[in-house]
Amino acid sequence: MRLSSGSSEALFPHCLEQVASRLEPSEEYLRTLELRAGEVIAALEKAVEQLGLSHVVKALELQGSLARDTWLPDDVDIDIFVLFDSRVSAEELRELTKRISERAAQELGAGLETRYASHPYYVLKLRDLEVEVVPAYRVPSPAQAVTPVDRTPFHTNYVREELSKNPALKRDIRVFKKLLKNLRIYGAETWVGGFSGYLAELLVIRYGGLQRLLREIASWKPGRVFIPPTEEALRFKGAPLVVLDPVDNRRNAAAAVTRDALLKLIAAARLVAQREDLLCCFLEPPRADLDESALREALAAKQFLFVKAESREGMPTDAFKGRLSRVQRKLKSKLEEEGFLVYRAKLLDLKAGPLIAVELDQEDLPPRKKHIGPPVWSANALSFLEKWVRARSPVFVEGERWVAVVPRKHRRASEVAAALLRAYKDFEWHTLDAESLLQHYTRPEDRREIYLWALGLEEWMLCFQ
Amino acid sequence: MRLSSGSSEALFPHCLEQVASRLEPSEEYLRTLELRAGEVIAALEKAVEQLGLSHVVKALELQGSLARDTWLPDDVDIDIFVLFDSRVSAEELRELTKRISERAAQELGAGLETRYASHPYYVLKLRDLEVEVVPAYRVPSPAQAVTPVDRTPFHTNYVREELSKNPALKRDIRVFKKLLKNLRIYGAETWVGGFSGYLAELLVIRYGGLQRLLREIASWKPGRVFIPPTEEALRFKGAPLVVLDPVDNRRNAAAAVTRDALLKLIAAARLVAQREDLLCCFLEPPRADLDESALREALAAKQFLFVKAESREGMPTDAFKGRLSRVQRKLKSKLEEEGFLVYRAKLLDLKAGPLIAVELDQEDLPPRKKHIGPPVWSANALSFLEKWVRARSPVFVEGERWVAVVPRKHRRASEVAAALLRAYKDFEWHTLDAESLLQHYTRPEDRREIYLWALGLEEWMLCFQ
Repeated sequence: MRLSSGSSEALFPHCLEQVASRLEPSEEYLRTLELRAGEVIAALEKAVEQLGLSHVVKALELQGSLARDTWLPDDVDIDIFVLFDSRVSAEELRELTKRISERAAQELGAGLETRYASHPYYVLKLRDLEVEVVPAYRVPSPAQAVTPVDRTPFHTNYVREELSKNPALKRDIRVFKKLLKNLRIYGAETWVGGFSGYLAELLVIRYGGLQRLLREIASWKPGRVFIPPTEEALRFKGAPLVVLDPVDNRRNAAAAVTRDALLKLIAAARLVAQREDLLCCFLEPPRADLDESALREALAAKQFLFVKAESREGMPTDAFKGRLSRVQRKLKSKLEEEGFLVYRAKLLDLKAGPLIAVELDQEDLPPRKKHIGPPVWSANALSFLEKWVRARSPVFVEGERWVAVVPRKHRRASEVAAALLRAYKDFEWHTLDAESLLQHYTRPEDRREIYLWALGLEEWMLCFQ
Repeated sequence: MRLSSGSSEALFPHCLEQVASRLEPSEEYLRTLELRAGEVIAALEKAVEQLGLSHVVKALELQGSLARDTWLPDDVDIDIFVLFDSRVSAEELRELTKRISERAAQELGAGLETRYASHPYYVLKLRDLEVEVVPAYRVPSPAQAVTPVDRTPFHTNYVREELSKNPALKRDIRVFKKLLKNLRIYGAETWVGGFSGYLAELLVIRYGGLQRLLREIASWKPGRVFIPPTEEALRFKGAPLVVLDPVDNRRNAAAAVTRDALLKLIAAARLVAQREDLLCCFLEPPRADLDESALREALAAKQFLFVKAESREGMPTDAFKGRLSRVQRKLKSKLEEEGFLVYRAKLLDLKAGPLIAVELDQEDLPPRKKHIGPPVWSANALSFLEKWVRARSPVFVEGERWVAVVPRKHRRASEVAAALLRAYKDFEWHTLDAESLLQHYTRPEDRREIYLWALGLEEWMLCFQ
């Protein structure tokens, strides 16, 4: 009954109701998760007490999409925040969280892993579930946040309050998140450059429902969206999308959204505006299964450049992928500068490690290239002419500039890549050919990702077949 | 003595004096030519009389650079104008000139050839000399010109008058013409797009000498030169260069000058401003002799496209070359549109016939290309996606547009050319490979032209070696 009551929107079409109901977690699963979260919190509380840390640990709280009841069934995070007194140093905070987590892991018979985003956090590995233990400062207001995650409890409170007024929006948020996920623009990490879960929630809340939100998005233009359209929002002029954080309006909650990700969402919204049924397909598109022979065929027929990096000294995952995605963009523009036509370039986030994947028009460039020289009015024309005429290169005036046709330094894409990557000394680089790629990435889910990419396929596009 | 007296310029440097003196025709040669011209005029006069045409032929006059004493020794034209009463029809004018020329040829024991520029003219082929017999109307003022050549007698009078005031300018005009010739921008024909002899004369006269002219040119910018800077000249705004015709200021005497030709002249003038001695070298650059093995090597190592045309029905030479040079530009942009990088493209004016020569970065393009689709806001996005997803092409958003990577229709430059040229039905097209090119162009001077072009060489640039 929950689905059709209370929504401020017109009823979902039938297919959308079905998608939404499949995204709704079962009461049973929800209870299980809450129970497990409760157990972990109890174990952590016990650890805090036993370690005599009650005076610095102000609270232990369930946060994230589970706390807000906006999570996707196949994508559940149990985030437990350990909220410290703000007088604790950053180093102590990390050290104490580690000790608390270790003791709780012992108590629960769980494994423990350290991971890194902007800061380290700890993952308790229970039999069937992972629980993230995230250290943060308890601050009196979001404006006083010391680390980025200190704002999270305020976000949770805000969203919970809004959703308590209109619980039907939870359904719309889940559907919107699923759409973003299928469009591959879900996540604020640099290598995704997409929409965070919190931003998705804000947008659905702001427009009071998915369908109105999508209609709005269909009319957006990058750089012209200011939500709300106030003086404060205009301070972020230049960003593709501006959505003020309601808990701290000095912050653009959409700062991570790239122009490309935004354009993709606008494009999808426009298509849905034209053909409503597409939305249901985008949410549950046909599945393209891994076809090994088609994968090999694509790798043989097209011109790819695959580069894998290893961090020399265990860089935190987030920072590592962030840097790799910057290297990927740099590599793309370098290849273009050298004369390659880059069809596509992406950082693939694979289980066996991130992979820079580039599709080019060709593997080898012609032996020579046009070298644009100084304008004819420039005093440098003389030395340009001396240099290139002596080198026996054709020289001529084109437009207002001297131009020479000169031998190319690098003709192979892999050489251009090698020359560029040598400068990044924190990484060890491996250029992989098709064969070594297939040998390295053996997991079916990684191979399927590579397969989709090699075909230039995203499943939501199969809706147009 | 003539060289250093009367010039409004500072003295030429020594090397320039030498060049200039070598461009000065000997008194003996001049007398010979005047004598021969006189003989031909006498024969033509006799023919006019015998044919009873004295009432329609108003005058027979020596015109052109010989009449103005501004010709280059290796480039002498003897132009004799048959000036008709303007009541004679265009057809009669041609017919009567033909009959007059035939009779004079008989009288002189000369051969006769018909050639075409804007109109047919006749060439008397004496043993060692060719004389052009050009029909025109005698009109009371240049404004009343019926054919373009009707203005020529007025041009001749104007230049002669100016030069009689300052005879030293003849030397400067010869040197300037030689410079234009070596820069390969001498001639107002469409396929040259350069400076006519008359325009060269006007410019030297206007600035009172070569050195001042070159200093002026070094400060020119295309589209900003109006000579003189009057209201009348501003009417030609948009032309790269505007030089009002002093005998008819409704006419831009520089209308034929292309932006490229002008930029080349500006570039050369700038270089001379920086290094004075270059001017002497530009005027007498090292000669690059035909090197057959280097020619074969260049043809083998670089990617050329050579296209020769035959006119199906004897089109006049000027019109033929004019159309070919337009086809050449069209071919260049078509190749670029298809994805080739065109280094250079030119219509080579060879003795055995004009040849379109194109240098490309590569012979074959990659099998696929980026196909830019509609903006994401366009209603056409849907059909674009349907089309290309069904065709199994990678599709993605780039910038604000949908893009697909699609198979190429034509991969070979010669295929692109063939597809384009098929539309020009007045010509028969031959795409020549290196071997058939060398078989077809057997004259050493043609081979030398091809050799220079294949190397990307113009001799004046050897001055920078």
